[in-house]
Amino acid sequence: MKTIFSDKHALQSVEREFYRGGWVEAFEIPRRAELVLAAVTRAGLGPVMAPRPFDLGPVLAVHDAAFVRFLEGAWESWVAEMGPVPAYPNLWPPRRSRTIPTVRPGAELGRYVVDMSSPILAGTWEAARAGVDCALTGVALIDAGEPAAFALCRPPGHHAGRDYFGGYCFLNNAAIAAQQFRSLGAERVAVLDIDYHHGNGTQDIFYDRGDVLTVSIHADPVQDYPYYVGFADETGEGQGAGANLNLPLPWGADFASYRRALAEGLGRIRAFAPDRLVVSLGVDTFTDDPISHFRLESGDYPRIGAMIAALGLPTLFVLEGGYAIEAIGENVVQLLKGYEAERG
Amino acid sequence: MKTIFSDKHALQSVEREFYRGGWVEAFEIPRRAELVLAAVTRAGLGPVMAPRPFDLGPVLAVHDAAFVRFLEGAWESWVAEMGPVPAYPNLWPPRRSRTIPTVRPGAELGRYVVDMSSPILAGTWEAARAGVDCALTGVALIDAGEPAAFALCRPPGHHAGRDYFGGYCFLNNAAIAAQQFRSLGAERVAVLDIDYHHGNGTQDIFYDRGDVLTVSIHADPVQDYPYYVGFADETGEGQGAGANLNLPLPWGADFASYRRALAEGLGRIRAFAPDRLVVSLGVDTFTDDPISHFRLESGDYPRIGAMIAALGLPTLFVLEGGYAIEAIGENVVQLLKGYEAERG
Ligand SMILES: [Zn+2]
Ligand SMILES: [Zn+2]
Repeated sequence: MKTIFSDKHALQSVEREFYRGGWVEAFEIPRRAELVLAAVTRAGLGPVMAPRPFDLGPVLAVHDAAFVRFLEGAWESWVAEMGPVPAYPNLWPPRRSRTIPTVRPGAELGRYVVDMSSPILAGTWEAARAGVDCALTGVALIDAGEPAAFALCRPPGHHAGRDYFGGYCFLNNAAIAAQQFRSLGAERVAVLDIDYHHGNGTQDIFYDRGDVLTVSIHADPVQDYPYYVGFADETGEGQGAGANLNLPLPWGADFASYRRALAEGLGRIRAFAPDRLVVSLGVDTFTDDPISHFRLESGDYPRIGAMIAALGLPTLFVLEGGYAIEAIGENVVQLLKGYEAERG
Repeated sequence: MKTIFSDKHALQSVEREFYRGGWVEAFEIPRRAELVLAAVTRAGLGPVMAPRPFDLGPVLAVHDAAFVRFLEGAWESWVAEMGPVPAYPNLWPPRRSRTIPTVRPGAELGRYVVDMSSPILAGTWEAARAGVDCALTGVALIDAGEPAAFALCRPPGHHAGRDYFGGYCFLNNAAIAAQQFRSLGAERVAVLDIDYHHGNGTQDIFYDRGDVLTVSIHADPVQDYPYYVGFADETGEGQGAGANLNLPLPWGADFASYRRALAEGLGRIRAFAPDRLVVSLGVDTFTDDPISHFRLESGDYPRIGAMIAALGLPTLFVLEGGYAIEAIGENVVQLLKGYEAERG
């Protein structure tokens, strides 16, 4: 399958993040994407191509307009008051407060961000837009008849909600892609999120919609990020009632339990009978991942790819997390190769 | 008047706070309280006494029980996972998430905190409790017949809401005192907040109650902390409709405009005819305050005290903010002396 990659991802680059009351070495770094790209090339997965540029229409189809305007202008506003330093929040709205705009960039930042891991830098918007372009180019390939494509997106996207960002994510690449499939005529689209962390942004975006099924297999939010959302009893609302499936697993889950959850998720997707599938592909489920607590081995990833392939759906893979630097490329590519082997 | 002071305030002590994407020198430091105490003594305001201890009843009368339990055990839980480092948040709930408890102290912290300026330390709970005891001891003095008292509280309290903390505040000393007056039989109590910053926590606590009038004169939240709340059209709800008065002033406000706002606030209090008055006394309205933007001069503070005294109400003053180290003590004491001179 084709891989879509933009080197603009490197515009989002920090050396540290805030945790445990202070700075620690950053996990979500440009080298992640470079290593995945190297593995794609080494394994001969297929051609690597640059994305073509898209306008903001597909972004605005899933994200709140005021949020998108904020992100687009955030760096410029921040620098005007704070100077050219990374934009980290120092406050955010208390409960029961309203959403009246202020004239202070720090307050506007606090309104939209949900953690200390996702600073806005000079190149954040351009990097995030390039990631979206990768996903949308993948959609276009599939719409033109390709059976599958791999959007090698960075920064990741699945933690970005309708009107908030965080968890290293700014724009929700997978959700934008899913909506783009709908805009191009697909009647039903499924998103399968196999990142270690719950795809809370994707759930948020489609929670009240019945035309996009969201399925996520992830660490129990009682134990792990994003904590406040991702529980099994969140099943959608309104038109979306029943169209959200969360399959949380406890710390220490191995492939035996993971495979059962995946089979259940795939069963739900099969029953939904979508026209297109988007896979939020994170490999932080890997046993050596430095911030995660599942126990998947490298040999498990081709099997996951094969199980997904058995759905027989045109499939866009969108890169999300994975922080075990030595293994991320191999794990991603082996999953995609497993998919291709099964699809034939 | 008597001053109530506990040296346990010094248990809340940090050298830096997080702003502009990194660490800056802390503003809310123990020396603030020491300088106010020195000025009280120097000026001969009256006796200084230690607080007597109170149980948690008055705290639970205004704060959410789960929030209080969290604060009480926060340091112990945090240290168990993170080690003995100050507890700063690194994430908080996105919009539309629920409030299911997790097993991770960082996630629980994020649920209750609203900024990066209010770390939980080993002594935070004890310091906050001592501040509450100062306020409650002041209530007891007034209940026993004293016309006024000064609770020299630190950490401050007026930014702490029903179930959140921040802005250097953990427990809302002034709100707890106001409620305690009610519990002791006062039918109506007014809280006048003259700190530079909106008393958002106090407003939050009494927003739906008609028995406690809350009046705050503060920097326009479009321009300054707490930003997301404190607008003029927030007037209370339910039983509390009409019992909240916000008087925001723009950056650069001098005493002429301040006095007009104060007169309006005092007029509202007079019309409410309370039995008791609690004054959230911040002097960050001072022209040289390093984090604020009003232009009050030291000579204005006695006049404010005199205007408050003209209400003729038993009055508890509760210390809130003020960060111009050289002037904080004198400004606070001159306000209190102005009050006493008018009361006679
Ligand atoms: Zn992840
Ligand atoms: Zn203040």
